[in-house]
Amino acid sequence: MTATRQGTPPYRDPAAPVDARVRDLLSRMTLREKAGQLNQRMYGWDAYRRTSDGGFELTDALYAETERFAGLGALYGLLRADTWSGVDHATGSGASDGAELAHLVQRHVVARSRLGIPALFVEEVPHGHMALDGTVMPVNLAVGATWAPGLYERAAAHAAAELRARGGHVALVSALDISRDPRWGRTEECFGEDPYLAARLTEALVRGMQGAPAEYFPADKAPVVLKHFAGQGATVGGRNSAESELGLRELHDIHLPAARAGVRAGAAAVMAAYNEVDGLPCSGNRALLRELLKERWGFQGLVMADGLAVDRLARITGDKVSAGALALDSGVDLSLWDEGFTHLEAAVERGLVSEAALDEAVARVLRLKFRLGLFEQPYSTCPSPLPAVGRDLSTALARAAVTLLHNDDLLPISPATVSRIAVLGPHSGTVAHQLGDYTAPQRPGTGTSVLDGLRELAPPGIDIRHAQGCALTGGDLSGLPEAIAHAAASDVAVLVLGGSSARSAGTGFDANGAARTAVSEMTCGEGVDLAGLRLGDAQYALLDAVVATGTPTAVVLIQGRPHVVPDTAAALLTAWYPGPWGGEAIAEVLLGLAEPVGRLPVSVPRSADRLPVHYNHKDTEYGGYVDGSAGSLHSFGHGLSYTSFAYGPPRLSGHGVEAGITNTGRRRGRSVVQLYLRRLRTPVWPRTLELCGFRAVDLAPGETRTVAFPLGADFRTAVPPGTVVEFRVAASARAALTAVPTQSFTAPEETPL
Amino acid sequence: MTATRQGTPPYRDPAAPVDARVRDLLSRMTLREKAGQLNQRMYGWDAYRRTSDGGFELTDALYAETERFAGLGALYGLLRADTWSGVDHATGSGASDGAELAHLVQRHVVARSRLGIPALFVEEVPHGHMALDGTVMPVNLAVGATWAPGLYERAAAHAAAELRARGGHVALVSALDISRDPRWGRTEECFGEDPYLAARLTEALVRGMQGAPAEYFPADKAPVVLKHFAGQGATVGGRNSAESELGLRELHDIHLPAARAGVRAGAAAVMAAYNEVDGLPCSGNRALLRELLKERWGFQGLVMADGLAVDRLARITGDKVSAGALALDSGVDLSLWDEGFTHLEAAVERGLVSEAALDEAVARVLRLKFRLGLFEQPYSTCPSPLPAVGRDLSTALARAAVTLLHNDDLLPISPATVSRIAVLGPHSGTVAHQLGDYTAPQRPGTGTSVLDGLRELAPPGIDIRHAQGCALTGGDLSGLPEAIAHAAASDVAVLVLGGSSARSAGTGFDANGAARTAVSEMTCGEGVDLAGLRLGDAQYALLDAVVATGTPTAVVLIQGRPHVVPDTAAALLTAWYPGPWGGEAIAEVLLGLAEPVGRLPVSVPRSADRLPVHYNHKDTEYGGYVDGSAGSLHSFGHGLSYTSFAYGPPRLSGHGVEAGITNTGRRRGRSVVQLYLRRLRTPVWPRTLELCGFRAVDLAPGETRTVAFPLGADFRTAVPPGTVVEFRVAASARAALTAVPTQSFTAPEETPL
Repeated sequence: MTATRQGTPPYRDPAAPVDARVRDLLSRMTLREKAGQLNQRMYGWDAYRRTSDGGFELTDALYAETERFAGLGALYGLLRADTWSGVDHATGSGASDGAELAHLVQRHVVARSRLGIPALFVEEVPHGHMALDGTVMPVNLAVGATWAPGLYERAAAHAAAELRARGGHVALVSALDISRDPRWGRTEECFGEDPYLAARLTEALVRGMQGAPAEYFPADKAPVVLKHFAGQGATVGGRNSAESELGLRELHDIHLPAARAGVRAGAAAVMAAYNEVDGLPCSGNRALLRELLKERWGFQGLVMADGLAVDRLARITGDKVSAGALALDSGVDLSLWDEGFTHLEAAVERGLVSEAALDEAVARVLRLKFRLGLFEQPYSTCPSPLPAVGRDLSTALARAAVTLLHNDDLLPISPATVSRIAVLGPHSGTVAHQLGDYTAPQRPGTGTSVLDGLRELAPPGIDIRHAQGCALTGGDLSGLPEAIAHAAASDVAVLVLGGSSARSAGTGFDANGAARTAVSEMTCGEGVDLAGLRLGDAQYALLDAVVATGTPTAVVLIQGRPHVVPDTAAALLTAWYPGPWGGEAIAEVLLGLAEPVGRLPVSVPRSADRLPVHYNHKDTEYGGYVDGSAGSLHSFGHGLSYTSFAYGPPRLSGHGVEAGITNTGRRRGRSVVQLYLRRLRTPVWPRTLELCGFRAVDLAPGETRTVAFPLGADFRTAVPPGTVVEFRVAASARAALTAVPTQSFTAPEETPL
Repeated sequence: MTATRQGTPPYRDPAAPVDARVRDLLSRMTLREKAGQLNQRMYGWDAYRRTSDGGFELTDALYAETERFAGLGALYGLLRADTWSGVDHATGSGASDGAELAHLVQRHVVARSRLGIPALFVEEVPHGHMALDGTVMPVNLAVGATWAPGLYERAAAHAAAELRARGGHVALVSALDISRDPRWGRTEECFGEDPYLAARLTEALVRGMQGAPAEYFPADKAPVVLKHFAGQGATVGGRNSAESELGLRELHDIHLPAARAGVRAGAAAVMAAYNEVDGLPCSGNRALLRELLKERWGFQGLVMADGLAVDRLARITGDKVSAGALALDSGVDLSLWDEGFTHLEAAVERGLVSEAALDEAVARVLRLKFRLGLFEQPYSTCPSPLPAVGRDLSTALARAAVTLLHNDDLLPISPATVSRIAVLGPHSGTVAHQLGDYTAPQRPGTGTSVLDGLRELAPPGIDIRHAQGCALTGGDLSGLPEAIAHAAASDVAVLVLGGSSARSAGTGFDANGAARTAVSEMTCGEGVDLAGLRLGDAQYALLDAVVATGTPTAVVLIQGRPHVVPDTAAALLTAWYPGPWGGEAIAEVLLGLAEPVGRLPVSVPRSADRLPVHYNHKDTEYGGYVDGSAGSLHSFGHGLSYTSFAYGPPRLSGHGVEAGITNTGRRRGRSVVQLYLRRLRTPVWPRTLELCGFRAVDLAPGETRTVAFPLGADFRTAVPPGTVVEFRVAASARAALTAVPTQSFTAPEETPL
């Protein structure tokens, strides 16, 4: 492109197509400037410091970085706040001044760039923006339990608007990791064990954060980096960053559908995972990044490496220069914190990688900057969304995630028979453990514990007693007597147990922010892998003691992974990490002010020594172990209501599958109707069941509704033509095992049913 | 070939090349006769019954089978005896009359065959011939612990001669399964976790049973069916026949080298495994059987399906006729017990599979019959080898397998300080649990328990007391007091604990002979998968109580897999399942009459909830779990001596790697010197260490010897040219982690170092 308008270079012409602008700008850049665009080396919190007057000033570190690369490709975590970054309310930026800080940095970057290229500000938004004043949402595992893509889409939109209002651009969000081994500390970041459920939630995430696919992102929308690509949920032993031995079919069946759906939905970027897949590290995996993602799937977006993942390649290349070359050649466009990508100029000059590969990567970075409109408007123009809306969305997700696993007629707590409630357990009176990993410091008073929620929502006159009983970890039993006394003196005990991903000041970190030494009460989160899936010893003692009082007990689990907890109390719920207002949501369900509508997004194993446990294993003859069942304690898809439902037999209709659902109880309620596929004739060995549709239906007592599942593009993608299948409609994977199937159905060549 | 000699058809001409004989015979056969050659449907024990005069007569079932197929392809288990077959000393054939039975059947088969084609008699020879009077050898896992291919080769040769002397032809032997998950009940059938060690032992097996590669097998040699192909040791959760999710690189690195080595050594046959590999069941896996094994590796032998594995394919094809067609088309030549292969005539006629595929399979079956010389001599001409030789070989293997894991100066038991020994534990006074799965009934009095061995070998005057203490399974503690009293009154306690694969009369079986309901004391073996890897509760109580007496205690483990046993006693040994005379071998080591020379062929995990645990994991950064180490309790390759050794630094020499080893103790002893490879520059992510050589050296006190490891064909197969590696020489994988490496070395293009 050579035409200019009033002397403006073509790349500055907002009326020109983005690709043409990219080409023009690229043609003007030096090798050094290009290499600079692919670097995201600095920790954002090293770029600024607070001044004595409460404003911000830039650091020499930032000056040196922009000098070195004649600009700045991307800056990670300018707004990040947490124990690792050391950023807190005294030193960091919040809702009121985040945009000001971002403007300050951006002004400098644009000024230092010969061609005026702005930086990308890349931020962690795993469950809300991980910044001061960012609204914390429930973690992904809780989102998975909602089975509610529509609600999640609205929450994602809110988080994107918060990010953009504070001056951030790009959102890093875990979405692609599939939970196949709960020993993994990052299980909380997964939407669950199922590829179909994860795919639908990943689409919702992309739609919510990015809006409808368009060349330019609106001012309140944020391009998403879907992470991690691929197979990170299947590392051996649930060990973080360890090897994955998966074959290509298993990878495509289980670990790639969410990525495929996210890319189809228009995701702007994908992060290459730390792990290797069958020998090839993702960041140096040409077959995965270039041949599959970019070529076969036609992905036009950005591929970012995970933090320091490029430098790790030096283990096989011998040095960091060739590590950078390998990553770039394999399809990584933008690095994170690595030294390897700082040497790309030398790598090209030494012939380790082609300039064409460099250009392609730079084009992808520039394209995203153009699509964000940064050349026209480098500064935030998005107003801060209302905090109350964020709180409502977070609470709504928490409410939808609360899952009732077992209920011997105890719940909902009836004011007619209950006048004294004992609220017990290490999680019962604090919000700290509800938040999950990747959470910024909260302002005091933010959120509601289960105790807060019950105190607020219980009918007047109900006496609520509280004791912690024990600590989250360790075996100190000194608090038990008080808790037991409260339980014995009450009509109902609510016992809140679980784990925590709260990082204390003493936690040690790896260079990439993963916890190295888990201190205090941390039993989950990145770097906190667990062999035994057990809670602290005292929690089991407390559970046994409270149940032994004979007082009907509802156990509530706050957790980032399934733990091994005996199902001995009268009722058992899990809320996963429900976020700050999770206590309120849990209290609503306990009291019957809200229905329990969550469904398990993962199978709950009976113990860690019989892993893997997931519903969609292959349909082989294994029946389990001599010393115990290999099946789940609680099935994928399981979740009780306060009413009951009957499922009619499913039928093949003109457009898909349909079945009648009846509320057979005496209370309004919601069933999450699940459609499972069973392959009968197929070239590869089939799974016992595969989720291929779900729909929540609200029904009044006695009401019947026909639920229809059209078999659309997802089905045709997943099931090759000619495959003979049957369908089952059920309330959980376990129920589907014995549910009446449809007639068998042959997957058609082209058109849906 | 049209030429005949004196009217004899060419296929009957022993001077003609085997391939020409095969072609000629094939050209004369009807479709029905061909299909008959591929069937091995009957259980051999249904073919005969004992007559009142002590001879044998054939059954109507055999007549019907030979009538149906106008002959008989192969007959499985004519000589098999065990609980499942129901064959015992009253009903079955033994050393004295096995050949007579085989002759009776063969005479009938040849007479029923229009072309006079004899049957193949296929027998289980997993660790000795599984027939009455067959010499029981230690199980494969114990063989793995010997690290002694030469000794194993001699034992295999003995077993082959026993098989042939009794009229059997073909030996089914587990060799290819690599132990990657000790929860699997068939772990005892593996040579261990390491592909290199398994490959060397598989070669020894083939050499021993088949002799030097030749067109015709000598009368005392038996073609081997190597099982199972492939990846069966990596099914998820250690669950028998479950799915394996392995990718191709992991499969080739870990699970195929033993098969490759066995095929190179000339193995006559391979058995396709039950499991699938990344979606494709082995018996229907064209890529594995036809493209890899037969085409790429050039395997000219027979591919046999595992029992009923062809029929299992009906799960994906819809019926057994198409299941048979799929298996044949994929490369299965001979089926076992299946219905699917009985319909091959119809399958060809209906176009489900080509007649060319059928012909190829028949040719492979016929080729093996010609190579066995069955057309010239259908009856056994091999004299029975001497039972004493078998016993010596079995004992020698057992002796070489005893592995000393821990020794606080207790062993060897010194007659100078010890006058009273308590021999305790559920395994101490019986041979039954030493034998392993796939064992025929033993004649009373066969074998020596640990108690027998100590009584026989301890110096005169030593007082030996004995109590069982507890049963193998369950929690009955009533026998503890007697055992504790013996321990307390002794100078040393020898406590023999462990598991058992002994099948009692009450065991229920699947149609393929795997245990379905494990009864009584069975804690291992086919179908007996274990989640917790734990011994019976009472065994732990007995261990604690005996150690608590303060009497120095040596724990001896008799087991078919690593169990979780705390290393709390003064000494710990494992003998795996050492075979009938294992008690004698163990006693020799305890008393110092033999040196402990066994080395672990598998890593011993600390608990089952941190699996997988093996030394050759990928070199990633994972450090373990927050609640425990992910490393082994006892390392692969570990095994103590009664003396000590020092390893000098390794050097690259003109032909490989060499290092000086010195006996630094005061007693003659044997070190198993292990050579490990560490890849430095490599296209795929490397393992931390890989075993690539081993050598046992006997050294007198003070003696130094230089051990040389030439880097031969194995090395060049495993390491692609250009890969940069270093070598370490050490006494275990754990020791190798911190051992001094050689200089780095670049794998050459063609020639060895």
